[in-house]
Amino acid sequence: MADIENQVWVTQLRHLKRLLAAEDSAAFRTAFFELHNWEQSQFFLSLNRSERLALYDVLTASEVGNFFDDIDDDDEEMPEYLAEMRPEFAASMLTEMYTDNAVDILEHLDQPTINRLLAQMPHQPALDMRSLLHYDDETAGAIMTTEYIAIAANQTLASAMYALREKADDAELIYYVYVLDNAKHLAGIISLRDLIVNDQETMVQTIMNERVISVQVTDDQESVAQTIRDYNFFAIPVTDDENHLLGIITVDDIIDVIDEEAVSDYSGLAGVDVEDTTENPLKAAAKRLPWLVTLLFLGMSTASLINHYESLVSEASILAVFISLITGTAGNAGTQSLAIAVRRLAFPDQERTFLRSLFSEMVTGLVTGLVTGIAVTLVVGFWKHSFILGFVIGLAMCCAIIVANLAGSFIPGLMARLGFDPAVASGPFISTLSDLTSVLIYFSIAQYFVASFIH
Amino acid sequence: MADIENQVWVTQLRHLKRLLAAEDSAAFRTAFFELHNWEQSQFFLSLNRSERLALYDVLTASEVGNFFDDIDDDDEEMPEYLAEMRPEFAASMLTEMYTDNAVDILEHLDQPTINRLLAQMPHQPALDMRSLLHYDDETAGAIMTTEYIAIAANQTLASAMYALREKADDAELIYYVYVLDNAKHLAGIISLRDLIVNDQETMVQTIMNERVISVQVTDDQESVAQTIRDYNFFAIPVTDDENHLLGIITVDDIIDVIDEEAVSDYSGLAGVDVEDTTENPLKAAAKRLPWLVTLLFLGMSTASLINHYESLVSEASILAVFISLITGTAGNAGTQSLAIAVRRLAFPDQERTFLRSLFSEMVTGLVTGLVTGIAVTLVVGFWKHSFILGFVIGLAMCCAIIVANLAGSFIPGLMARLGFDPAVASGPFISTLSDLTSVLIYFSIAQYFVASFIH
Repeated sequence: MADIENQVWVTQLRHLKRLLAAEDSAAFRTAFFELHNWEQSQFFLSLNRSERLALYDVLTASEVGNFFDDIDDDDEEMPEYLAEMRPEFAASMLTEMYTDNAVDILEHLDQPTINRLLAQMPHQPALDMRSLLHYDDETAGAIMTTEYIAIAANQTLASAMYALREKADDAELIYYVYVLDNAKHLAGIISLRDLIVNDQETMVQTIMNERVISVQVTDDQESVAQTIRDYNFFAIPVTDDENHLLGIITVDDIIDVIDEEAVSDYSGLAGVDVEDTTENPLKAAAKRLPWLVTLLFLGMSTASLINHYESLVSEASILAVFISLITGTAGNAGTQSLAIAVRRLAFPDQERTFLRSLFSEMVTGLVTGLVTGIAVTLVVGFWKHSFILGFVIGLAMCCAIIVANLAGSFIPGLMARLGFDPAVASGPFISTLSDLTSVLIYFSIAQYFVASFIH
Repeated sequence: MADIENQVWVTQLRHLKRLLAAEDSAAFRTAFFELHNWEQSQFFLSLNRSERLALYDVLTASEVGNFFDDIDDDDEEMPEYLAEMRPEFAASMLTEMYTDNAVDILEHLDQPTINRLLAQMPHQPALDMRSLLHYDDETAGAIMTTEYIAIAANQTLASAMYALREKADDAELIYYVYVLDNAKHLAGIISLRDLIVNDQETMVQTIMNERVISVQVTDDQESVAQTIRDYNFFAIPVTDDENHLLGIITVDDIIDVIDEEAVSDYSGLAGVDVEDTTENPLKAAAKRLPWLVTLLFLGMSTASLINHYESLVSEASILAVFISLITGTAGNAGTQSLAIAVRRLAFPDQERTFLRSLFSEMVTGLVTGLVTGIAVTLVVGFWKHSFILGFVIGLAMCCAIIVANLAGSFIPGLMARLGFDPAVASGPFISTLSDLTSVLIYFSIAQYFVASFIH
């Protein structure tokens, strides 16, 4: 909502709250249904507990379900909302919601509560929800909905349109109609556009598209998102391995997947969950400390490595001057190659093997290392009037960059092979690890040359 | 496309190439039109120049336009593709494409080429494209299309359906129909679902939704994306400040916007453009070096600061042991707060001012700094049998973290106020900057206490 409309919106919220408090349910309902579902959900989220209880009294379960479809299911207070409703009301609201959204909510509840709610629902929706609850997180099955429109092939467009009209109210999306054969296999697809522009006496089977692009119910949600993006679909059918139609995934859920994945990659690189923007600075500190303290102990091993070389430093204190330059630059290079590697893993290129990527990253590391190393050699050489010192720093930096680059590109690939999210091999981890290797490289080289640059 | 289908796809590509080479245009066309548009575009991208020239001969401009709609307009070779077509063919292909996609392509060409192409088009599309070319990058105007369906209010649904059928072929999306008044103001919206389920004798004005959510043509594309996400729309109308309908933005373009923004944030944090995954390791090095070398020079100032304290280090070489621990930990903390700040700026919270965020970040920094500082004090104290040394390291780390946290949250806000993309204040920049402040804090504190821990 644009800033300029913000004031209008705040006034509207206050007005609605006053009507709700005044128990003027007719006036409240009129004003409330002026709002779009998403706006209704925003109004709901601005209420306190007693206001919400009043709201459940003036609206039907189905009306509440309409805007619950638009509440982010990750909302921390979702279990609280459901607990404060009468159980029949909650069950009936979930039944009225789109199945995928209702299941997303159920997933945040404990098993006894889920069972109690499902027991109060009509047979079919309860069955649908129970089966959706079984699919693994982040698979096509977990994000699909069962409210699609399916028709038979051997009918005219006119009769298909009639079936469509009957089912339109319950479907999440009516712009694709799926054609099933007698054994319920997905046999074709027809768009509503094709349904309305063609002659109504045409048979469905003559204009349906038989080359249906579908995804498997066990497919990863990221690959589903990629297919929908590539083909510019509004929805995609989900099938089992015998091509039975199980559900559809709509583009609005895919937008959430794309955003989730992006946020989790970004969080990984930052070493903090950026989605969790708590208002409370103490809670924020509690979220950030685990990573910081873990890395602190990794950093202690770097410190103890330098400690090992303390006599070298006391002999040539000039070496201390360049520690942070070398670790910092190698850390930057490692972060770059890490980010590239994580991104590549998300969009795998068939022609590019893991080993080839690693080799190519080594060449990139060699070139960036050489250029940076030569630059540093010259700068330090002129600054300190010692090209031997310059050479030591430059060589150390070059080697440290090559190693950091390799680590940055190798570790995400390793994580992925071990079945972890590669994005978790985060930026701070790589730079702290690269501190350790850089210091080791630096002092090993310096030790060898130290006699030449101490006067 | 799933891995398992990959082999099928490769075979299919080879088969198509053979048919094209054999100049068997009938067989080629049959096989080619089995493919979805996106697959056709992938086939096209796999061709070399002479194969592409053959393709332009067996397909019409309109058929080529159909799959050009699905080619990423950022494709580097787009100008080359257009240059190798006959000018009339290129102009005719662009005319057949959706206006927004055609304009995205034109934007990558030079002005004389654009003018030449527009001159060969029919009047109306040329006019539409010329006007779309004028909108600023990353605004609603720049990503909207003009192929929407608009109808008048004072007609029955049956006559609206008739109009819809006539226009359906040219429209990018037919699932929303926009209702205009006599002065072409956007007066209402009606979904195709409502059009088909209601009685066909109903008047449009009685069922249309008059509370249309629209965006302004000058709105930032990110805020358009947020509105479409919030409301779960498939498309949103774009108006000027007098509420004239200028175009629509469809959800497929919004997915690209969301992805672009995520990639640019991620790239900013990594200090490298992750989208540009070139195959050539030398080119990759050339892309990464500018950031690395810039940061190297910032790092040199840290080195020269340590150099300033060299006599202190030679007096107490133990100080060198903790340089990387302090700079590394502060850098990690700064990156965390930077990421949170960048994310907050993308989703501004009306109730949270910039100053309040900064204050809250200071409290977070204080708490994380204290906890980390105390941990380090104890570890170093026991390790080195000197709690004074431990205290110096711990105090320095605490202060360095607070400063890094403040810098991480302040700099993106400052960038945004100065009109830059806050994500550009990238991770490597913050950690290199925090190296400098950390070292300054560390040695200032150490200098003060040095007499107490040298034996």
